Amino acid sequence: MTERNIRVQTLDRGAVEDEAVEIVERKGIGHPDSICDGIAERVSRELAQTYLDRVGKVLHYNTDETQLVAGNAAPAYGGGEVVEPIYILIVGRATKYYVDDDGVEHHIPVDSIALEAARDYLREHFPDLDLETDVIVDVKLGEGSGDLQDVFGEDGKQVPMANDTSFGVGHAPLTETETLVLETERYLNRAFHDDHPGIGQDVKVMGKREGDQIDLTVAAAAVDAYIDGLDDYEALVGDIQSAVLDLADEYTTRDVSVHVNTADDYEDGSIYLTTTGTSAEQGDDGSVGRGNRANGLITPNRSMSMEATSGKNPVNHIGKIYNLLSTEIAHSVVDEVEGIRDLRVRLLSQIGRPIDEPHVADVHVVTDDDTAIADVEADIQAIVDDELANVTDITQRVIDGELSTF
Amino acid sequence: MTERNIRVQTLDRGAVEDEAVEIVERKGIGHPDSICDGIAERVSRELAQTYLDRVGKVLHYNTDETQLVAGNAAPAYGGGEVVEPIYILIVGRATKYYVDDDGVEHHIPVDSIALEAARDYLREHFPDLDLETDVIVDVKLGEGSGDLQDVFGEDGKQVPMANDTSFGVGHAPLTETETLVLETERYLNRAFHDDHPGIGQDVKVMGKREGDQIDLTVAAAAVDAYIDGLDDYEALVGDIQSAVLDLADEYTTRDVSVHVNTADDYEDGSIYLTTTGTSAEQGDDGSVGRGNRANGLITPNRSMSMEATSGKNPVNHIGKIYNLLSTEIAHSVVDEVEGIRDLRVRLLSQIGRPIDEPHVADVHVVTDDDTAIADVEADIQAIVDDELANVTDITQRVIDGELSTF
Amino acid sequence: MTERNIRVQTLDRGAVEDEAVEIVERKGIGHPDSICDGIAERVSRELAQTYLDRVGKVLHYNTDETQLVAGNAAPAYGGGEVVEPIYILIVGRATKYYVDDDGVEHHIPVDSIALEAARDYLREHFPDLDLETDVIVDVKLGEGSGDLQDVFGEDGKQVPMANDTSFGVGHAPLTETETLVLETERYLNRAFHDDHPGIGQDVKVMGKREGDQIDLTVAAAAVDAYIDGLDDYEALVGDIQSAVLDLADEYTTRDVSVHVNTADDYEDGSIYLTTTGTSAEQGDDGSVGRGNRANGLITPNRSMSMEATSGKNPVNHIGKIYNLLSTEIAHSVVDEVEGIRDLRVRLLSQIGRPIDEPHVADVHVVTDDDTAIADVEADIQAIVDDELANVTDITQRVIDGELSTF
Amino acid sequence: MTERNIRVQTLDRGAVEDEAVEIVERKGIGHPDSICDGIAERVSRELAQTYLDRVGKVLHYNTDETQLVAGNAAPAYGGGEVVEPIYILIVGRATKYYVDDDGVEHHIPVDSIALEAARDYLREHFPDLDLETDVIVDVKLGEGSGDLQDVFGEDGKQVPMANDTSFGVGHAPLTETETLVLETERYLNRAFHDDHPGIGQDVKVMGKREGDQIDLTVAAAAVDAYIDGLDDYEALVGDIQSAVLDLADEYTTRDVSVHVNTADDYEDGSIYLTTTGTSAEQGDDGSVGRGNRANGLITPNRSMSMEATSGKNPVNHIGKIYNLLSTEIAHSVVDEVEGIRDLRVRLLSQIGRPIDEPHVADVHVVTDDDTAIADVEADIQAIVDDELANVTDITQRVIDGELSTF
Repeated sequence: MTERNIRVQTLDRGAVEDEAVEIVERKGIGHPDSICDGIAERVSRELAQTYLDRVGKVLHYNTDETQLVAGNAAPAYGGGEVVEPIYILIVGRATKYYVDDDGVEHHIPVDSIALEAARDYLREHFPDLDLETDVIVDVKLGEGSGDLQDVFGEDGKQVPMANDTSFGVGHAPLTETETLVLETERYLNRAFHDDHPGIGQDVKVMGKREGDQIDLTVAAAAVDAYIDGLDDYEALVGDIQSAVLDLADEYTTRDVSVHVNTADDYEDGSIYLTTTGTSAEQGDDGSVGRGNRANGLITPNRSMSMEATSGKNPVNHIGKIYNLLSTEIAHSVVDEVEGIRDLRVRLLSQIGRPIDEPHVADVHVVTDDDTAIADVEADIQAIVDDELANVTDITQRVIDGELSTF
Repeated sequence: MTERNIRVQTLDRGAVEDEAVEIVERKGIGHPDSICDGIAERVSRELAQTYLDRVGKVLHYNTDETQLVAGNAAPAYGGGEVVEPIYILIVGRATKYYVDDDGVEHHIPVDSIALEAARDYLREHFPDLDLETDVIVDVKLGEGSGDLQDVFGEDGKQVPMANDTSFGVGHAPLTETETLVLETERYLNRAFHDDHPGIGQDVKVMGKREGDQIDLTVAAAAVDAYIDGLDDYEALVGDIQSAVLDLADEYTTRDVSVHVNTADDYEDGSIYLTTTGTSAEQGDDGSVGRGNRANGLITPNRSMSMEATSGKNPVNHIGKIYNLLSTEIAHSVVDEVEGIRDLRVRLLSQIGRPIDEPHVADVHVVTDDDTAIADVEADIQAIVDDELANVTDITQRVIDGELSTF
Repeated sequence: MTERNIRVQTLDRGAVEDEAVEIVERKGIGHPDSICDGIAERVSRELAQTYLDRVGKVLHYNTDETQLVAGNAAPAYGGGEVVEPIYILIVGRATKYYVDDDGVEHHIPVDSIALEAARDYLREHFPDLDLETDVIVDVKLGEGSGDLQDVFGEDGKQVPMANDTSFGVGHAPLTETETLVLETERYLNRAFHDDHPGIGQDVKVMGKREGDQIDLTVAAAAVDAYIDGLDDYEALVGDIQSAVLDLADEYTTRDVSVHVNTADDYEDGSIYLTTTGTSAEQGDDGSVGRGNRANGLITPNRSMSMEATSGKNPVNHIGKIYNLLSTEIAHSVVDEVEGIRDLRVRLLSQIGRPIDEPHVADVHVVTDDDTAIADVEADIQAIVDDELANVTDITQRVIDGELSTF
Repeated sequence: MTERNIRVQTLDRGAVEDEAVEIVERKGIGHPDSICDGIAERVSRELAQTYLDRVGKVLHYNTDETQLVAGNAAPAYGGGEVVEPIYILIVGRATKYYVDDDGVEHHIPVDSIALEAARDYLREHFPDLDLETDVIVDVKLGEGSGDLQDVFGEDGKQVPMANDTSFGVGHAPLTETETLVLETERYLNRAFHDDHPGIGQDVKVMGKREGDQIDLTVAAAAVDAYIDGLDDYEALVGDIQSAVLDLADEYTTRDVSVHVNTADDYEDGSIYLTTTGTSAEQGDDGSVGRGNRANGLITPNRSMSMEATSGKNPVNHIGKIYNLLSTEIAHSVVDEVEGIRDLRVRLLSQIGRPIDEPHVADVHVVTDDDTAIADVEADIQAIVDDELANVTDITQRVIDGELSTF
């Protein structure tokens, strides 16, 4: 039926949902590592779109190396200040000069695009970060290696060639603990923030499940301009805790306990107060690819790729594409095929081969008691085959910002 | 009458106005060196004001070393773009930590202040420079040397001590050529710009007088967004030329010829077109103290101080104070005393002595034919004495932005 | 027997050695990410040793964020050159000022130490990298957050408190494929390099096993000064291939095929030639924690920690300590206890608790057919307990450079 | 006799030697501004030589913008240390890519050349500056503006065209005070240093003459490794004073008093002690063109050019060439023509004209009582004419390092 090398097998462990101990973490969008992920991905998207607009195709680039150097701040009830700005260095490669088939020369302002993309991203996501005083954005984008551009240049081909021997992995469905960790951060940074502007974007959520007991540990920065004193702060912490408990009810019937800002010491006056909403203002450096995986989580119970997904070129960077695609495939299968309790998709590329023909696409499945692997094998293969055939959709969805990378 | 060491003598040359050849230059506010001067001085003023607001006195700082690294641009009729942003590094020293007499600790956000001051300055003066895409402002402000702070710390004293053995020099009146050069740049960057937004801020004026023939050479950047083609450009150049000729009539009866953008070559299409209004966008680096002296001019016919005035601390940096003060004195004398054709004031400090007691204040005068030096000596001494007595006014006027430093 | 929370259980998957498909990767010491790892760890060790020498204990620091921006090079047979130097930015926090119990003030030259450590590291490991022309090392080390210093300051305590809720994981024994990948890189960078100076340090090894077929893909930079033409290059590639095949015989009886520099295209003259021995010279950026895990490998078949181990403070950075310790424990158990086919140790910290008392220490075991979990449980617990009791040994061994972190 | 526009006139002031008050200053090679001058000029020379070696002619470049950001140091008797390295940023433009007439492409490693040149310069001149710990050298060299390259590209022409309307000025002979200031610094940094390694390179000499009384104020850094205590320091200061007094006897019969390190306060222990020999280690920033003029001095009694001479391209940068040439001419005239007491040469260029045909070459002379201007006019004109005809010699001598620029 398919010529692609797709294998479906039983996963030789149980479902993560059934393991005795489960650990999950999510670094929220205001964590210094996530700030870097977010900037790198925004820069990537703006570059890709500019290339499309100007020369009709995405040229070689890679911007997956943003480095953040923490600042110094003096937060204070009612509003403190940043004493030493955060320094952000955008690093990568991008094609600056291109001659199109008509002989027209194009100079692409990649540094200016990167600068603006980073500043726009910060402005949109960090309402309490003053771009005029709190952050310095610097750029070092070199030209890429000539060889890599060849891989791109072959126009007639619909499907690009893999630029590396690389590996992507995706899982579905999320466990309850994973879901809780992911949704808690999103909720706090969206709906809760709308009502509670005193919560900053640097929200880190750690979930630990032992048997049926789930502990959610939330570290959430408070923004000093909205906090007039310790009472306000305690109220905010209390609101976070009860809101997260309420949220948890929607996703699990297990026992959930929620701990917020456990390192606080009210006696000492040591609390998690910031001026900008992120610990990047004071001592926490960050860089790309050090935090959440492509599915938004850090899941030591599951196999993970080390590949940094954010900032990479979505046309031919195989690590990026396969991490996103395998995650998409995993969710598609679980959505469409009944009886699957846990599923892992791994895609291994072969350098120089079309990216819709991975060296191996192996799918490991844990079925429920009523389902045999043979019952689902054909359906799974068909879905994988179909998703691989449409691999280039991933590229466009990344450029359009429809796929999150961290 | 006075205990200050004030000497009045005949200048052993004739008036500059009477020399056979005179050369004068002004780098307009958009020249890369002037951009650095302007930023350095704005940073200085904001720091000084912040210190006054927070701790009641100006603490040690010195910010006279801004470095500008040129960008790359692709100007184009109707509007081009900056391809590689200008990089501006603010360098200096500033007190970051201070314990006041009540034991209160102050952390002064000097880096954030410098960053904001620089960006504000650019925003106010460069309407065609997009701060989000065209420029990166970086900051490296260290702590100053401990010793220098002692000079400042002695509170009871009204008049600070000189921090160095240094020298300031001022001249008055300006010659016609000097006046023309100064006023031409100001006019083009103000009234003319209001009517002709296509002229950029990078206006450089060179004046050469041989006998009674004055040549004004103007190099003025055009801003591409306002220039739709070569015709527009030629019209702008023509307007500049005729406007400057008209302006010249107000200041001199000598023959004046005006040359604008002489390096243009219309055949080759080589014209002075920019996107941002400054050559800093393409290849022209800049730094503080490399351009205009404190009176706004470069005057090789006159003795000049090498001291960079912009960015220096106006409380005790004796080079800055004496350059500004000597210029003020020169103008005061010429305004108040009749019969003076040319006048030079030199102030030489003595390290560790109050700045109102210079080691030497010597005034060299060229009087007109009807006036003897003895006729004016006493008046001059009195004015010098009075201005020295009020030396600290200079400090406040600098902080208030009333005195231009470049 | 022990009060520590140590659990020993059956691993709910088979041994990795028995899985159908296995993927393993190692980025050699010359890979840009590994260069950053190596520098960060060297900087860390030198800082730790300096603190010990000067104030008798390790003060707060964290230097796990080195960023490398690739240069540009023009390699050529017989010796090319670096056209644009590699830029390396050392980022982190370190205590610069300390008052000891006797009231003596210490100013620690952390920036100078970092600079020298990085340059020493490069000099020692990269014989073909000219430190005078090929690399710029820059430093941005801030002061850390005050709160963290408290955790450190409590002198009487032998065992530090955990600074975070974090997680470490270790595995033993290595599979054949893992062993091959690890030993191949080490061999090429050591013994092989001694005989073949034409091989650079940027050796990347990817191992893939399907059933009993192992494919080793080696990407090894050649150093142009030792390569006079394509013949030399082909000879080097051939020598690498046969040497690795020979090496493989020592570790496995499975079928092994070795592929070297598969992206080469001799017809196009496109080969992996460098001037410095690392792709950092041309287009490949790098940063800390993006490559090998603490055991020197990237192993998607196994659970991994995202924590960057290199550059972190080995006294109380719990992520670093637990990753190294769990790996040590795993190997100790396998060395001392018979019948274990695969073993995973996970250590989960609890912020504010002594690091020898993890929240959970869980050990998952795959025993061989003749061994029951009950047979080994007590021995394993005893070893884990003992290793935890001696957790602070890890710190000293890290400072002494005995433990590799990448 | 000559078609060049050479004018010889009486100088309308007396000789500087006869003025009542004279002020002269020299910043020694270790002053932060001079360090920048020295690096900029060395970078320039190495670039020029590389272009000559590789493509047979000097391509467009300009490297006159080095910025030094001071470090922090903790000097101590017997040997202290640099706590925070000095940061030096080399700024400018240089041609990186060139296609020669045979169609051969050249990639010139301008950044690597600049880096090495700067480090070599520091190594050669600053024996107490440890390049591994005390200084970070960074480079930002852009490509120049395309237009300027045209001026260069016209091969057949022997004499380049002026790239700007610019101005150079030279004086001869030096006054006694000028000679003393210049020779004092040279002596202290050469012969005296050979015997007294405890003196650093940061020697600043200020000369003030009132009538026949000359005051030399020397600020000389001591190097802590050679100074074991205050006694050593006092001995060094005493040796400097007596050595300079002895030196003065060779150059003048006027009364000379010598003051060394007047800001010292032995009671407070406040002395001018350094670890590296330069105040750049602690709080004193520097940049190019802020210190000595092309003749090595700052001479407010004489007209000076603002043009930074160091780092500029010696082929067509007219400001550099004319400042050096006018100084050469002045000395030649004084050497060869009798009866000249003071002489000033000014060269004014005209953009786009050959540089051996200045717009004006005016020579102002003060003759002694026995000599009329008519007696010397023809000789002077001949010398000026001859030197202008050989203007391109200046270029080669600059590249060879025979001409000092600061």
